[in-house]
Amino acid sequence: MSTPAPHAWAPAFARRTEGASGELAAILALSAGTDLISFAGGLPDPETFPVTVLLELTRKLLEGDAGTALQYSPTPGLPGLREAFADRLHASEGRRPEVAELIVTSGNIDAVGLLAKAMVDVGDVVAVESPTYLGAIDAFRGFQADVRGIPMDGDGVDVEGLDRLCSATPVKALYTIPDHQNPTGLTMSEERRHALVEVCRRHGVLVIEDVAYRELTFTAERPPSLWSLAPDVVTQTGTTSKTFFPGVRLGWAVGPSAVVSQMVIAKQNSDQCAGAFGQRLLEEYLRGGHMEPQLRRSNALYAGRCNLMLAALEEYMPEGISWTRPHGGFFTWLTGPEWLDTTELAHRARADGVAFVPGRPFHAAHDGCNRLRLAFSLARDDDIDEGVRRLGTLVRTTLERR
Amino acid sequence: MSTPAPHAWAPAFARRTEGASGELAAILALSAGTDLISFAGGLPDPETFPVTVLLELTRKLLEGDAGTALQYSPTPGLPGLREAFADRLHASEGRRPEVAELIVTSGNIDAVGLLAKAMVDVGDVVAVESPTYLGAIDAFRGFQADVRGIPMDGDGVDVEGLDRLCSATPVKALYTIPDHQNPTGLTMSEERRHALVEVCRRHGVLVIEDVAYRELTFTAERPPSLWSLAPDVVTQTGTTSKTFFPGVRLGWAVGPSAVVSQMVIAKQNSDQCAGAFGQRLLEEYLRGGHMEPQLRRSNALYAGRCNLMLAALEEYMPEGISWTRPHGGFFTWLTGPEWLDTTELAHRARADGVAFVPGRPFHAAHDGCNRLRLAFSLARDDDIDEGVRRLGTLVRTTLERR
Repeated sequence: MSTPAPHAWAPAFARRTEGASGELAAILALSAGTDLISFAGGLPDPETFPVTVLLELTRKLLEGDAGTALQYSPTPGLPGLREAFADRLHASEGRRPEVAELIVTSGNIDAVGLLAKAMVDVGDVVAVESPTYLGAIDAFRGFQADVRGIPMDGDGVDVEGLDRLCSATPVKALYTIPDHQNPTGLTMSEERRHALVEVCRRHGVLVIEDVAYRELTFTAERPPSLWSLAPDVVTQTGTTSKTFFPGVRLGWAVGPSAVVSQMVIAKQNSDQCAGAFGQRLLEEYLRGGHMEPQLRRSNALYAGRCNLMLAALEEYMPEGISWTRPHGGFFTWLTGPEWLDTTELAHRARADGVAFVPGRPFHAAHDGCNRLRLAFSLARDDDIDEGVRRLGTLVRTTLERR
Repeated sequence: MSTPAPHAWAPAFARRTEGASGELAAILALSAGTDLISFAGGLPDPETFPVTVLLELTRKLLEGDAGTALQYSPTPGLPGLREAFADRLHASEGRRPEVAELIVTSGNIDAVGLLAKAMVDVGDVVAVESPTYLGAIDAFRGFQADVRGIPMDGDGVDVEGLDRLCSATPVKALYTIPDHQNPTGLTMSEERRHALVEVCRRHGVLVIEDVAYRELTFTAERPPSLWSLAPDVVTQTGTTSKTFFPGVRLGWAVGPSAVVSQMVIAKQNSDQCAGAFGQRLLEEYLRGGHMEPQLRRSNALYAGRCNLMLAALEEYMPEGISWTRPHGGFFTWLTGPEWLDTTELAHRARADGVAFVPGRPFHAAHDGCNRLRLAFSLARDDDIDEGVRRLGTLVRTTLERR
């Protein structure tokens, strides 16, 4: 069969797709390779997946509830799972959302993307932490937002800097990951949280609070969520991909009912609803009391790996390199001298059998080239020491050559 | 806990969300109710869900492949399912797509939404059949497309009308459902298909071919797909929600590799990937040869219901009402006198215990108010006669009162 010469479709693509990075895909691709020790992707360890309970629950649902579990779901989610999420938020955050304040999403990035779709007009300013989750930068840019990075320190985002930006120009939303942030591993202090919601309330800026790593904590205490402090001004987005498992796409958003209604409309013409099968599985899992024991096991595993990585960094990294000491989550964040080019370093590291994500794509302004992210979540214990040794050797050579 | 007065978020919503209908949600809500016989939602019958095979496959995957089935998937989909889709298209359409020509999506509406996101700038013209799937109209409008309806006749869309539109103004894409169309149940003739792709190729217009109902056919013969006729100019979108089951959100798109690459980028910042668990289930289901027997059983069920509905229409509908006689799919489409207001009729029908979707939302120009859609897919056999009797009585009274 002969096919006509290919039509050049690129000129027909929407302007919002110009400059789309595809860096997420490139990073996930970095995770594959023989004899490669990968600290690249922020993936949960399959060891944490609750296979035994899932065997029981899948059988139970298929035998007793296939008519709901295999059917379409209402766009805001199945009533039972929304109730279970509301109960869980009540227990953990001290506030129970109304039904109209909660939507079940297809993962956290779906929630952020729906907010972008519902809120962002071309050129609207969205403030983000610098650095931040690169998928969120792409999600806002995907709707042609003007994404501005606000610097961070050890206590979180620079609220005075945000206040100045909001005074100078209208800001539609502030996106933040207050707990065990991606990529830095840092957690926002309680004082900073109060200051942040106060500034956003004053300027009428929607706070998008991404709590993807909030439950993955290595210590008992945790500061209040932004949503619990200011449900009038905060929409919280979360995911069960790192606590339950990612193979069913599930997450939630909870926020002002007007905002959530708008997300429901946006979801109707994206994927229409999250999968009912995963929703029913998660509801049964939560109701069965399985989540807390899984979290304890997962957090023990990830805390151990974090310690291994911090010890290895201490041993192998030369002077001139600093890093964060996370109390939860999946990541530590390294900073080298200003002249260091971690994108170039990443290519040489791959040749030496170790992968990481360079700092640049985590910055809205594409700076931060002297930084890099290491994920400790998926590397086997044995590999952490060897991987950091390889990286340390490479960094030492690079610094000495200068 | 005192909460500050609610902030008025509505002024902050994106312009693309203005006038969003929420009609899909309203229609799904119409499907519920006591003593209500619903011909509203286009839902598959749970009787067709392959519970026994799923019991076996879920156990097999959880015991043997949890590390893949419960993990994140690459954005374009798991390699095994993409191969299985490619094999299936090869067998059914006579052409095997290259790897770069195929993406796994979270249902059909996700595929259409990704195309809208990748292709549509504000004000771009997208042509659709009039009437057409209202979710697609919303998906294109969700990116501020100028959606134009092209009339249909019994052979499909008016290609000469499309040609005139394309000559008068640049058209980004033409969206069509050639097989057992939603809402009309009509199928495009083979001659019309050749003419359509020829016109679109000449004008450089991307054809979006929605094959959601293509496999749900009551007869042996079927015309070639548009994609098989013109893979250079057609992107086909499909779903397994009506053939496998909807509780895992799965579909596909196959088209020019440049277009599919752009969809992959768009998907990275919507839901990132379809759920791996559903992908692995479907791959095993296809490889195990279970799809064809399920389709035969489902199509026998739906053909029987279609016949019941056509017989009941014949018996109960007064003169002045005409309807289509589908050879597949879920729907028949009724047309009354020009003055008939089916939106108003729908409210009275609910009071009389029968639900349907009025014609208006299926039309880009919001005309077609004298038409209505009946779904025969989910109504129990016994209910079809009674539901059409109720509707027929109401319509007769309405026509006589005039």
